[in-house]
Amino acid sequence: MNHSRRIGNVRRTLAALKHSALLVTHLPDLRYLCGFTGSSAALAVTRRGVRLFTDGRYSTQAAEEVKSAKVEIVSGNPAVAAVQWMAAQAGVDSIAFDPAQTTVAALNGWKAALPARLRKSLLRPLDETLVEPLRQLKDVDELGIMREAALVGCQLFDEILTVISPGMTEIEVAAELEFRARRKGAEGMSFETIVASGARSALPHGRASMAKLPRKGFLTMDFGVMWKGYCSDMTRTVHLGAPSLRERAVYQAVLEAEEAGIAAVEARVECGVVDEAARSVLRANGLADYFTHSTGHGVGLEIHEGPRVGAKQKTRLAPGMVITIEPGVYLAGDFGIRIEDMVVVGRGGREILTPATKALIEL
Amino acid sequence: MNHSRRIGNVRRTLAALKHSALLVTHLPDLRYLCGFTGSSAALAVTRRGVRLFTDGRYSTQAAEEVKSAKVEIVSGNPAVAAVQWMAAQAGVDSIAFDPAQTTVAALNGWKAALPARLRKSLLRPLDETLVEPLRQLKDVDELGIMREAALVGCQLFDEILTVISPGMTEIEVAAELEFRARRKGAEGMSFETIVASGARSALPHGRASMAKLPRKGFLTMDFGVMWKGYCSDMTRTVHLGAPSLRERAVYQAVLEAEEAGIAAVEARVECGVVDEAARSVLRANGLADYFTHSTGHGVGLEIHEGPRVGAKQKTRLAPGMVITIEPGVYLAGDFGIRIEDMVVVGRGGREILTPATKALIEL
Repeated sequence: MNHSRRIGNVRRTLAALKHSALLVTHLPDLRYLCGFTGSSAALAVTRRGVRLFTDGRYSTQAAEEVKSAKVEIVSGNPAVAAVQWMAAQAGVDSIAFDPAQTTVAALNGWKAALPARLRKSLLRPLDETLVEPLRQLKDVDELGIMREAALVGCQLFDEILTVISPGMTEIEVAAELEFRARRKGAEGMSFETIVASGARSALPHGRASMAKLPRKGFLTMDFGVMWKGYCSDMTRTVHLGAPSLRERAVYQAVLEAEEAGIAAVEARVECGVVDEAARSVLRANGLADYFTHSTGHGVGLEIHEGPRVGAKQKTRLAPGMVITIEPGVYLAGDFGIRIEDMVVVGRGGREILTPATKALIEL
Repeated sequence: MNHSRRIGNVRRTLAALKHSALLVTHLPDLRYLCGFTGSSAALAVTRRGVRLFTDGRYSTQAAEEVKSAKVEIVSGNPAVAAVQWMAAQAGVDSIAFDPAQTTVAALNGWKAALPARLRKSLLRPLDETLVEPLRQLKDVDELGIMREAALVGCQLFDEILTVISPGMTEIEVAAELEFRARRKGAEGMSFETIVASGARSALPHGRASMAKLPRKGFLTMDFGVMWKGYCSDMTRTVHLGAPSLRERAVYQAVLEAEEAGIAAVEARVECGVVDEAARSVLRANGLADYFTHSTGHGVGLEIHEGPRVGAKQKTRLAPGMVITIEPGVYLAGDFGIRIEDMVVVGRGGREILTPATKALIEL
């Protein structure tokens, strides 16, 4: 990973915003900028220096992982130490921080650690998140990892099809997915595995339960792995037994919506246009009211990142963004269907990271 | 779960603090107060009303889970809707919020949604977290669940002993633990499983890696399950092959420290006294410098809650608190040992939730 280039990008943005320093406390941002994967640290970026503050539990790990920043082990709060260090550097007259990643209590603590004359003016909230927009544009190293992550997800889907049978609990299906993910070398799952069968498939976020898979009905599986720090995310809905004509028709509508969404993905297209491409297919099928969420979201070091691919979103897609396309239809008390792929935004098109079949599978 | 009693406790504290309402956005607090387990919601508690605001994805789930509050489905930000609703209630002249669970950006958003005359004064940060201290004192229902959770952890430890062999990767050990946890009905793990073998056992937070278990050396496993929303947490360190005399001696010192920590647990004792009980044993063995973290922490709906059981902590233990006792010794480049149990604070003593053996096991 080219952490120095990323730090360079941060410095350019900081300079344009007339800030002389940045405090980074959000863990995925830290990992992105210096490679540190521990759970407690703060990164200080000034025009001339980059320093990671963490505690004694992480001294060995930080020394191994962090090459682009000097590491300082502190006994107190790492962010307080970072603020105090930056305040003492020549030429630092404004320290930017991300108000969306900073609690009111943390900010008060940082201010209290500064000399009184600096408390009012030194720490300044960014108007917009600074590191996350950089993270949205994946570089070559990141796309390589995310391709691997997505393919692991597809392998898991292929394997789970050989395991599923009526009478298994949803949790057993999740356990099989998760065990196989770990055996393949995943660090874990990227979010709580959704396995929702029968009428439970109408719950958009139906976490795996002790419910038994029915002899007949839909089964939605929405899952992803953590792979070298990056998240995969995919959904497939399969059918146990033979689907009815109506079930087939709704599946076909969701699939067409999903493919229309994917077909709209391209650099410079507004996210709202992609959402509408998927949504309009469901509307034409009289199903728009049953599609109760956004079409997709960015994914990377976090399972949910920008851009939000929702109705009327004006954000324009850019090359290197990785987003999900995941329309669904939820008929409460009856059944639900969702199909989701991960897609890389390209200059004149797109790359689908999750090639697993989307034909309606009957098990 | 007696959510109404919990809401009553919140109202009593609010009244004592002269606040007329409370905004709750921290998900474990929401679950504690009304049973909602989704990922996006806000709870409004006034003197007369309790209302949960969430979005359309959770309408079915909220209707099933939430009995002690009225549920309102909103299309925008649930916390903004909650603030606006409370502001419109007669008699609400101060809305308390938890500054440790509120970002600077969220607070600005809530204020912006209020009429100008209310922006300065209506929303007021709590001086101290309000719901979490209530959560620290587990009630009978919670202790029942946590006993189950801890016993599942102990069963997993017993089972994994039959699986471990030299040459397996640490990730395979973690995968086996996690698979078996799921099969027993756990919702997942309560934190990223730590499996650290050989010299890696000297990393206090050595997440499972592709490293292979050695023929000879320590193996530390620190893991927990999510069980009906509650976390278990335990650590055992076993030895592959025959330990050296020095390894035995250090293990014995850690075990004695851990048991001394447990023996000090009792209502009204300061947390710092418990920490010192464990730490002083290691000091007497010349190992204090290698015990680089606190002795323990509270556990419940979250894996890390108050109280913090660390050096000089003045917080007094109270009946119903569940804490971990987990001293460790980390000899960088050589080996590490940690032993951890979950303990319920009782009036005249304590209850150990994790009875798995702590004798030095040779595999």
